[in-house]
Amino acid sequence: MPKKKKPTGKLRVIPLGGLGEIGKNMTVIEYENDMIIVDCGLGFPDDEMPGIDLVIPDIAYLEANREKIRGVLLTHGHEDHIGAVPYLLRSLNVPVFGTPLTLGIIRNKLQEHVLQWKPDLREVKAGDRVRLGALEAEFIRVNHSIADACAIAVRTPLGILLHTGDFKLDPTPIDGEMMDLVRLGELGREGVLLLMCESTNAERAGYTPSERKVGESLEYIFSTHPKKRIIIATFSSNVHRVQQIINTSARHKRKVAITGRSMLNIVNAAIELGYMKVPKGVLVDINEIKRFKPEELTLITTGSQGEPMSALYRMTFSDHSQVTLDSNDLVILSASAIPGNEKLVGRIINELSKNNVEVLNDSVVAVHVSGHACQEEIKLMQALIRPKFFMPIHGEERHLKANAELARYMGMSDKNIFISEIGKVLEIDAAGARFGEIVPAGNVMVDGYGVGDVGNIVLRDRRHLAQDGLIVVVATVDLYDRQLVSGPDIVSRGFVYVRESEGLMDEARQIATDAILDVLDDWDNTDRMYMKKRVKDDLARFLYTKTKRKPMILPVIMNL
Amino acid sequence: MPKKKKPTGKLRVIPLGGLGEIGKNMTVIEYENDMIIVDCGLGFPDDEMPGIDLVIPDIAYLEANREKIRGVLLTHGHEDHIGAVPYLLRSLNVPVFGTPLTLGIIRNKLQEHVLQWKPDLREVKAGDRVRLGALEAEFIRVNHSIADACAIAVRTPLGILLHTGDFKLDPTPIDGEMMDLVRLGELGREGVLLLMCESTNAERAGYTPSERKVGESLEYIFSTHPKKRIIIATFSSNVHRVQQIINTSARHKRKVAITGRSMLNIVNAAIELGYMKVPKGVLVDINEIKRFKPEELTLITTGSQGEPMSALYRMTFSDHSQVTLDSNDLVILSASAIPGNEKLVGRIINELSKNNVEVLNDSVVAVHVSGHACQEEIKLMQALIRPKFFMPIHGEERHLKANAELARYMGMSDKNIFISEIGKVLEIDAAGARFGEIVPAGNVMVDGYGVGDVGNIVLRDRRHLAQDGLIVVVATVDLYDRQLVSGPDIVSRGFVYVRESEGLMDEARQIATDAILDVLDDWDNTDRMYMKKRVKDDLARFLYTKTKRKPMILPVIMNL
Repeated sequence: MPKKKKPTGKLRVIPLGGLGEIGKNMTVIEYENDMIIVDCGLGFPDDEMPGIDLVIPDIAYLEANREKIRGVLLTHGHEDHIGAVPYLLRSLNVPVFGTPLTLGIIRNKLQEHVLQWKPDLREVKAGDRVRLGALEAEFIRVNHSIADACAIAVRTPLGILLHTGDFKLDPTPIDGEMMDLVRLGELGREGVLLLMCESTNAERAGYTPSERKVGESLEYIFSTHPKKRIIIATFSSNVHRVQQIINTSARHKRKVAITGRSMLNIVNAAIELGYMKVPKGVLVDINEIKRFKPEELTLITTGSQGEPMSALYRMTFSDHSQVTLDSNDLVILSASAIPGNEKLVGRIINELSKNNVEVLNDSVVAVHVSGHACQEEIKLMQALIRPKFFMPIHGEERHLKANAELARYMGMSDKNIFISEIGKVLEIDAAGARFGEIVPAGNVMVDGYGVGDVGNIVLRDRRHLAQDGLIVVVATVDLYDRQLVSGPDIVSRGFVYVRESEGLMDEARQIATDAILDVLDDWDNTDRMYMKKRVKDDLARFLYTKTKRKPMILPVIMNL
Repeated sequence: MPKKKKPTGKLRVIPLGGLGEIGKNMTVIEYENDMIIVDCGLGFPDDEMPGIDLVIPDIAYLEANREKIRGVLLTHGHEDHIGAVPYLLRSLNVPVFGTPLTLGIIRNKLQEHVLQWKPDLREVKAGDRVRLGALEAEFIRVNHSIADACAIAVRTPLGILLHTGDFKLDPTPIDGEMMDLVRLGELGREGVLLLMCESTNAERAGYTPSERKVGESLEYIFSTHPKKRIIIATFSSNVHRVQQIINTSARHKRKVAITGRSMLNIVNAAIELGYMKVPKGVLVDINEIKRFKPEELTLITTGSQGEPMSALYRMTFSDHSQVTLDSNDLVILSASAIPGNEKLVGRIINELSKNNVEVLNDSVVAVHVSGHACQEEIKLMQALIRPKFFMPIHGEERHLKANAELARYMGMSDKNIFISEIGKVLEIDAAGARFGEIVPAGNVMVDGYGVGDVGNIVLRDRRHLAQDGLIVVVATVDLYDRQLVSGPDIVSRGFVYVRESEGLMDEARQIATDAILDVLDDWDNTDRMYMKKRVKDDLARFLYTKTKRKPMILPVIMNL
């Protein structure tokens, strides 16, 4: 009997986003001539990226290997996993696989983008397997803060890879569909070559509570606030949360009105696709709420992160056309502030407090639970999968390291744990696993219609301008006759309040004039570049001495 | 026997900072011709104030009443209570009263400022009383995260006011000096007219743990990490924390080296003034640490908030001349991130994780406790003082409201609780208390040497520039001959990367040229203002259509 031939091919696993950062999740799995992409998410700009709308992964590596790509596989419908799909589809016409809710959300997003081709969206259900060249992907049910989330097992000639996506273990899920522990355990028994496990909550001890916990809190709050109108802000994609709010409202004989564009979009999609069930007569239009008493109403709204254009923000600052808040209202923030949003959320709470609107958030009562596995659930994943190799994904360095610690705690040896970074190739072949080459990877910034046209130089200028503002010096010279023809005029923005600093600006104009005349007198220098440099240097020195500030100085010298 | 005459005067309590905000604490207490100021703190700029170094209270009201001011009374030496003293002393030559450590820190600060007069600093101890015109102030010991902190009771003809300053109740304080519950209770029994109580932790249930708790955690960490060098970052002003670190190190036979300018300053001051006791031979200079093995060393450093120039930041990013961190090091962040600093602290933790440096912070083990009273301690204060009127201070609206809720819970009636805001006068006379006029109050921004020269217009421009950058259009025209003489030249910064957007910039130049020529052809309009407006409007429309961005557009049109 011939011995089963060992595969001679090489497997390459390449994170293009989501490592060393929160968001922008994207992982490439490549075996010889076949390549698949797990997730294609966006990230949000940090303080160092003023004016940027969103950040997507650099896909130069994919564009260079376009003929190999067999598909994009989506684990679930959150922005940090699907948000970059429309941008990817601009340059790559590849099939996109996802569960019905995930694709429903994608379809909605794609309406705002113009593509050269009709996107090839292919629906799968948990349990389905998809053949993709030499690779085969299997979608496996997990729990998360959005319905219809999956982990993905990829069968390769060298063995099975398991990518958990985002997950938690919820023994009492709202839709009755628990994470498929049995299937995960079967794969573990069969043997998993590489586990890629999310790290978001790897620093947190214990278990993440069940989504049902929030339902219990809501029941308590509704019972103890029978006279108030209740306004609940949450993530629009948390279909199960919205379902629980609707159920609790129905039990308490309240009508439910929904406000906020993304909330309306997702609720409609979820009802249509059967992910949400609304008892008859419970939903009312936001324009009809005047017909009901406060205690007969629940409003579900966007804005749980304090976003300045959201429905909750507008209600809070008296700028919502249908809803004004007062002491008859109870606002529930059914979400925790995403890091970086604390101040925005605080602004909402402060304004509501000022106007005597009662506010409850998750620091007071359990009106929110995380969607991510804590340490005990991650250990359970390790125990079921017992992988040969391990790569923590989805998290900043601290989270990846904490996840690696858990793997060590579960008995994995250091040499089989790979803490990677974006662009770094993990090579696996019959001989083992090791880090290989680095491929292009990074941030592509989206600003308005521009994708990638804002880079580090532009951002550096924006940060500089924000710090100390700007001085423009304009003069016309005649380099032939070596005369100053007009100016210099000085225009400043964001530097000092000019009307109260006339003396300073006069002195600055004199400094610029002297610099220009000096250069005009110096017959060895006929260079406008040199003149600009002199103006800039002299002014910078003067202004720093006077104000200890370093505005950007832009000399514009025109020659007649 | 003649009946005691009822005072006919009016008492005015005016917060000039610290209400509706965290920081910048300052309260004016005024009775007829006498005025005292409790605390004079600074605040830190928020995201809406790019380039601003710090924020101080508007003291126009004090300057208008300078002859009434009998003194500034400081509760303790934190920046948010004393940081604006040097700025106040620039225009007001008034005595400043504080405990020895508080004045020690002030003296240090004043060295960086030039004043017209020698500051009149007057030392007091807890228990001391100071006569200030018709008012008398008494300093009362409280516990806080800095040594030598006091509440201040002000005796007025109408009754006693109690200003708690920042406080917590620590039954096991490091220096043995517990909050003076007895004296507070005596005042309560005598009768307190108005309680002003800090609100920082009014949303938090329970009691704030004792500072000693941190000592226990340190003992545990030192015992379980006998082989590592230990680096601890904390607030330099937390003298008791530093004392505990030194004591624990000494017990574990470690030498202690101190790095970071403010840490060195305060430790030296604290030792000199007797607030800190260091066993002989324990302190070593940071330049000598090479003489010791890692396990023989503890380093105490600044940078617990991730501040980019701090010693810890420089160590983390390999930019500290004496210390490089590696896997033989344990870094303890003995502080919690102040709201807004989470990302900076996260950056440190991530970089350390990447370099295999072990990090412990207060989310893992109790290496930090708050300095502020939680709900049970605030209730205790209410129970001891039993004031007639109550005004929550020190906090955003949400905190003030939570503190007012606690007062209600303790039995105060709504009409005796005054949630105020800065500039709002609380008037008290024999007939009762009520809100009165509004006096000038607000933020004065400090940017470099400039105090108050950056206002809302400058900040609005900075924010605009940060969002989408800037386009400068420069042209020289001859309005007499109605000709375009030179230009238009276009210079942009922070908008797009120009080398990759030449087409766009060429089109923009054409739009500007057309606009200028149009106006030159229109003999009814000879106005440069109008020409500028046309250039600006046409370009703005063009650029928004093309890029969906709104850069600042600065047209500079020179006339020959």
